[in-house]
Amino acid sequence: MNNLEIAGILHVDDSEDDRFLFKRAWQRAGIHLALVSLASGEQAIDYLAGRGEYADRSIYPIPCIVFLDLKMNGTSGHDVLEWLRAQPHLQHLVVIVYSSSNQTIDVQKSMRLGANAFVTKPSGNDRWVELLEAVNNFWLRFHEFPWPSNCRAPEIPA
Amino acid sequence: MNNLEIAGILHVDDSEDDRFLFKRAWQRAGIHLALVSLASGEQAIDYLAGRGEYADRSIYPIPCIVFLDLKMNGTSGHDVLEWLRAQPHLQHLVVIVYSSSNQTIDVQKSMRLGANAFVTKPSGNDRWVELLEAVNNFWLRFHEFPWPSNCRAPEIPA
Repeated sequence: MNNLEIAGILHVDDSEDDRFLFKRAWQRAGIHLALVSLASGEQAIDYLAGRGEYADRSIYPIPCIVFLDLKMNGTSGHDVLEWLRAQPHLQHLVVIVYSSSNQTIDVQKSMRLGANAFVTKPSGNDRWVELLEAVNNFWLRFHEFPWPSNCRAPEIPA
Repeated sequence: MNNLEIAGILHVDDSEDDRFLFKRAWQRAGIHLALVSLASGEQAIDYLAGRGEYADRSIYPIPCIVFLDLKMNGTSGHDVLEWLRAQPHLQHLVVIVYSSSNQTIDVQKSMRLGANAFVTKPSGNDRWVELLEAVNNFWLRFHEFPWPSNCRAPEIPA
């Protein structure tokens, strides 16, 4: 198995509970991509930069989609977003920012900094699954990822 | 009825056939927003700028989502996108670019110019409906529109 082919979902959230909820929802939503879960904005930047322990891209590939918690201690979601959109090789990355706040100023700043979408943090397991199913249906079935090439969900025969 | 509340879908395509297909799919997909259909990039810019015949925002409101054909004669999808992202009041607009081409260079340029997503032009009626249903499920049920406020699809009770 070529690990370079396992481009996946990168989830960044400093709450262990929310990482657990997300992982369970990702399993239930039937997304075909591998999940990498990180606990801080600093780790996210290290991962996306391929720095330090994340230097081997065959183990830590560029993901198809980043789910980014906005309000994290230390390096925030906005910090990560601003950094990544300044990297030429990450300008096409799909980034979905989420937060328990849906304050207009947070949404506007996220979109201005280059988020592809902004969603309110789902309340409860089922809503997380619904969100990830909607992501699967739109992003992984219809969006054209310029790279990596294996983000697209396999079509289910009618 | 306050027309200011009818923020909707703006569809821009210079092919009359594709405008017809889109309209039919929009009807079948059960999207709650009004559809405005325009035949050129020039018209799209006039509409979004509120110029000329589109000056009355109570009749021609800022839309929730723009579906933008990439390859149009005259002002292309990329031209419209570049113009609109330079307008402060349109930076948060959700723009989905589509094209019959899914060439990497077209996708990359669209994302770099600020498209929220890029999809290949669906082949056939059913695929158009599937796309618009996926758009409804992700964008209109989960994305937070900073403005206008009435983009969100009504929740269907479980």
